[in-house]
Amino acid sequence: MAGQLVLLRHGQSQWNLENRFTGWVDVDLTDTGRDEARRAGTLLAAEGIRFDVAFTSVLRRAIGTLWLAMEEMEQSWVDVHRHWRLNERHYGALQGLNKAEMAEKHGEEQVHIWRRSYATPPPAMDPEDPGHPRHDPRYARLDARTLPATESLQLTLQRVLPYWHDAIAPRLKAGDNVLIAAHGNSLRALVKYLDGIADDEITGLNIPTGVPLRYRLDDELNAVESDYLGDA
Amino acid sequence: MAGQLVLLRHGQSQWNLENRFTGWVDVDLTDTGRDEARRAGTLLAAEGIRFDVAFTSVLRRAIGTLWLAMEEMEQSWVDVHRHWRLNERHYGALQGLNKAEMAEKHGEEQVHIWRRSYATPPPAMDPEDPGHPRHDPRYARLDARTLPATESLQLTLQRVLPYWHDAIAPRLKAGDNVLIAAHGNSLRALVKYLDGIADDEITGLNIPTGVPLRYRLDDELNAVESDYLGDA
Repeated sequence: MAGQLVLLRHGQSQWNLENRFTGWVDVDLTDTGRDEARRAGTLLAAEGIRFDVAFTSVLRRAIGTLWLAMEEMEQSWVDVHRHWRLNERHYGALQGLNKAEMAEKHGEEQVHIWRRSYATPPPAMDPEDPGHPRHDPRYARLDARTLPATESLQLTLQRVLPYWHDAIAPRLKAGDNVLIAAHGNSLRALVKYLDGIADDEITGLNIPTGVPLRYRLDDELNAVESDYLGDA
Repeated sequence: MAGQLVLLRHGQSQWNLENRFTGWVDVDLTDTGRDEARRAGTLLAAEGIRFDVAFTSVLRRAIGTLWLAMEEMEQSWVDVHRHWRLNERHYGALQGLNKAEMAEKHGEEQVHIWRRSYATPPPAMDPEDPGHPRHDPRYARLDARTLPATESLQLTLQRVLPYWHDAIAPRLKAGDNVLIAAHGNSLRALVKYLDGIADDEITGLNIPTGVPLRYRLDDELNAVESDYLGDA
């Protein structure tokens, strides 16, 4: 029987609070975000789930959320795999802007398309921009051509899936319980895949921060049922 | 050229404070211990060392020390490998006793031998003891015959070395900078090996808590020089 899968979106970050688009910028959790992470750990501990392995991105707001939740569960000894393919959607040249600035710079209608369209990515970040991932040591061992300068949700799903198939799915099929702490859009991409949500319906899906989303999967990793833990 | 190696002994734990022998018991850091870990991170950040990979045990006092130091360095995205072979020396039937109780139960002279002898292990823990590692889920996938019920420093070195050779040394030879956060005796064992310290001389060696010990190694991983960071 396949293991249980739990998805956990990181708690509030500094830029969530400031209403700025974060993407791959490595901002930290706020104190509220840390509390959300610990509460997620309490909810998971109450369910008595014992994890065999955990996965997260290479961004500290997800890594920190995972750490605090695992510590709360007294399961900090469980193996953790960090991987860039679980990162947030890359928001291109919009990273760092807040919604008001975006609307001013690009117009309300255009901003709405970038935020809500499944397939239209925002304008790309200049490769010479010091914020481009190719300048960041955490990606230094990757072929720079694989690093995004912008992503739609569709592109996000395309880069998450290879890691799902190669690293995560085999553990679930082996019966392991798996926790993934990641981001609003890398998790939406995964949920779209797991639940078979249509391209034009994913827009309406939002995953709340810090609330564990549990999947029960059949042997072929089809979603049998899923539920949020707690009263969310 | 080989990468730099830094060894970091975990900060004060609850049982350090209570003067009890801890071994494989998974006690947590004290607030003092957490401060020591953060200070270690500050010292490492001041040296500007960028780590490529980190290793730790499956005991939370070492894992937590590593976490806090890496967070302080803003390097929480670096891969961390947890492994039981980096655990503290298993203290057998003495785990949980404090020094006064040990002396009362076994006599001062005997206790001195167990604490200071290189090759004499304390009496073994009963396999039926609920504290025996074979009852702990974190070791459930191991062949139980490999799990110690007691260890001398010599036995500790013998179980640390396979992990050193297979997992850690190849990274150093590839030029990676490596951080190991572990325990008084698993690190003493490693230092004995790296510095070629004789069996009857290792007794005098004590590694302070929370002070990074940096090694520069030649291509064959012989220690060229080593120093403690800070004023320790």
